[in-house]
Amino acid sequence: MVPLPSDYATQSCPLARSLEIVGERWTLLIVRDLFFGVHRFGELVAHLDIPRAVLADRLASLVERGLVERRPYRSGRDEFHLTASGRDLWPVLLGLMEWGDRHCAAPGGRRRIFLHAACGSELTSAGECPACGVTPVAADVATRPGPGRDPARRDDPVSRALRRPHRLLTPLTV
Amino acid sequence: MVPLPSDYATQSCPLARSLEIVGERWTLLIVRDLFFGVHRFGELVAHLDIPRAVLADRLASLVERGLVERRPYRSGRDEFHLTASGRDLWPVLLGLMEWGDRHCAAPGGRRRIFLHAACGSELTSAGECPACGVTPVAADVATRPGPGRDPARRDDPVSRALRRPHRLLTPLTV
Repeated sequence: MVPLPSDYATQSCPLARSLEIVGERWTLLIVRDLFFGVHRFGELVAHLDIPRAVLADRLASLVERGLVERRPYRSGRDEFHLTASGRDLWPVLLGLMEWGDRHCAAPGGRRRIFLHAACGSELTSAGECPACGVTPVAADVATRPGPGRDPARRDDPVSRALRRPHRLLTPLTV
Repeated sequence: MVPLPSDYATQSCPLARSLEIVGERWTLLIVRDLFFGVHRFGELVAHLDIPRAVLADRLASLVERGLVERRPYRSGRDEFHLTASGRDLWPVLLGLMEWGDRHCAAPGGRRRIFLHAACGSELTSAGECPACGVTPVAADVATRPGPGRDPARRDDPVSRALRRPHRLLTPLTV
């Protein structure tokens, strides 16, 4: 991550510390994809159109900060998974997506919908299940495309897989 | 704001759009200070140790994107206030502060506490008032320092004023 000028280090508020870790745009898009079940380097590259060197650098930072862990899936190849502390970012990520949907509205409505996996109800913008009255953790949330039309609709394998309902934190079948 | 490479523009998810607006570390610290009632350019400079040119640039972006508005307070001088869309970022900001407090813990506990102004109860990490069962908007939230010791405690006028309980979005008396 590009460090901020040293002045920034004198901002010790928890927000400043959080931003030091996740306050970088690619980083939060990577974290979003890990929530969506995209765990392999090549899939992240294809879905995010991110330069390989930038992705490698951001993933290394996330591993070093304890938000992401590597898990070997075959000889010499690792997948990337959120740790408990990474998964704890779910309310922040949901809040940013909801804010984006309200303030940069797409024609037709929300572009992506989040559901309580246990009952299928659509979550409120605060992430609560209106039917059960609970605020599910990410592992109990599913997502599917909303009615909003996406002007920059993509057609890579991850984007296609995410057109079907999918439970967060479970590997996406690409 | 420094634009991301053009590839980034192909990420049309609401998160990508939100990050295009607020996904810059200084920007969210400025938004935090506006929530805390710091509305004048010189106070923001002193509290954030931010270079004047950077602050001017970030404020201009926030005004252009509709998150912040200028309000004249004397001839030729403007204050900066959050608009409704800027105030809507409250849950995201609270979420990031809570996450920072959990994952970069200070000795002694939380560095800052948020209260439901109507009843004085401490909000949960999800921003809910446990006594009233409501999730107050920012204008109904007050803040005071928590028990956590701040290793980089600052001593500018804004930092001193924020040692007293203060209602969000009301001008801080510096």
